[in-house]
Amino acid sequence: MKILIIGGNGTIGKKVSAHFREKNEVLIGARTNGDVQIDIADAASITSALEDIGKLDAIICIAGEAKWANFNELSEDDYYIGLRSKLMGQVNLVRIGQKYLNAGGSITLSTGILADDPVIKTTSAAMVNGGIHSFVQAVDLEIENGIRVNVVSLGMVEDAYDKYKDYFPGHNPITMDKAINAYVRSVDGRGCGEVIRVY
Amino acid sequence: MKILIIGGNGTIGKKVSAHFREKNEVLIGARTNGDVQIDIADAASITSALEDIGKLDAIICIAGEAKWANFNELSEDDYYIGLRSKLMGQVNLVRIGQKYLNAGGSITLSTGILADDPVIKTTSAAMVNGGIHSFVQAVDLEIENGIRVNVVSLGMVEDAYDKYKDYFPGHNPITMDKAINAYVRSVDGRGCGEVIRVY
Repeated sequence: MKILIIGGNGTIGKKVSAHFREKNEVLIGARTNGDVQIDIADAASITSALEDIGKLDAIICIAGEAKWANFNELSEDDYYIGLRSKLMGQVNLVRIGQKYLNAGGSITLSTGILADDPVIKTTSAAMVNGGIHSFVQAVDLEIENGIRVNVVSLGMVEDAYDKYKDYFPGHNPITMDKAINAYVRSVDGRGCGEVIRVY
Repeated sequence: MKILIIGGNGTIGKKVSAHFREKNEVLIGARTNGDVQIDIADAASITSALEDIGKLDAIICIAGEAKWANFNELSEDDYYIGLRSKLMGQVNLVRIGQKYLNAGGSITLSTGILADDPVIKTTSAAMVNGGIHSFVQAVDLEIENGIRVNVVSLGMVEDAYDKYKDYFPGHNPITMDKAINAYVRSVDGRGCGEVIRVY
């Protein structure tokens, strides 16, 4: 398979990319330093990157931003950071990406445990994650050409534990193997419209 | 109690308003023809309306738009109709409304079954509903002054059955009494950060 992994250089992305590279042709998409330059917050950038690559069998997105801050410190504009990037960025990736997939191809988005079990400072981040969970279930009812769309929702992963543990009191870190397997389930399984939760 | 019901003239809103009016002072908020003019899609309009009213005990929002259309016909701009109105409109109502509530007051938002169980044409509508479900759980961790925020998520209601039944094949209409009770549970109960599902 030919797979584009957006955010394939990140904490989770690099492990996921290493796994898929064993048996597939993997392209890393990133705003800088990838094989392909792509910024999901900009629909024109998505189109341009996919036009350059041509047909794919799978697109994995492990990218997208949202602002973390106390509820009383988040401005309306702050919410739009997440709406434009992690929410509409991933929606646009499905809208546009479907045209560049071979029949039966898959698109795998990423959210996280905040959608179901938020912590403080995440009114924006939890919201965009929850929106994507519902979007994936809805788009599955309509998407054509046998394309499968799923979303991986991970708890705090092992490799991010030191950086984030204070934000997630009492959360049990997810091993990187389990994190990788969530993406394998989406790409190599046959599930459609699934929220693949690993908490 | 003094209660502002935004969208209190709508299909669901008028039944909810009639119920609360029995024992409370109820103000109807609407873009036109309400007691108070308010457009939740515009933060300045929310502030202006609440500034005119003064302190409240409860705010109920049964308003907000999102565009329904086939996935392949929804443009990026179409998604922003729902993001600005039903999603950020309700977020802004909590951000701003909390300052105008008496201690222990409540804010009740509205979504719908699409968040959990979408139908075709609802990639945008389902998404904004799901976002609000996660937002409500997240804001509950931080909101101050004893303010409670809940969301009512109804299935298709009896009074909208004729208009919407073709969009919801096999869905069982919710009686208006059950719909009213969901709002009563939020306003008169003690629950916080709840998604009150009546499907």
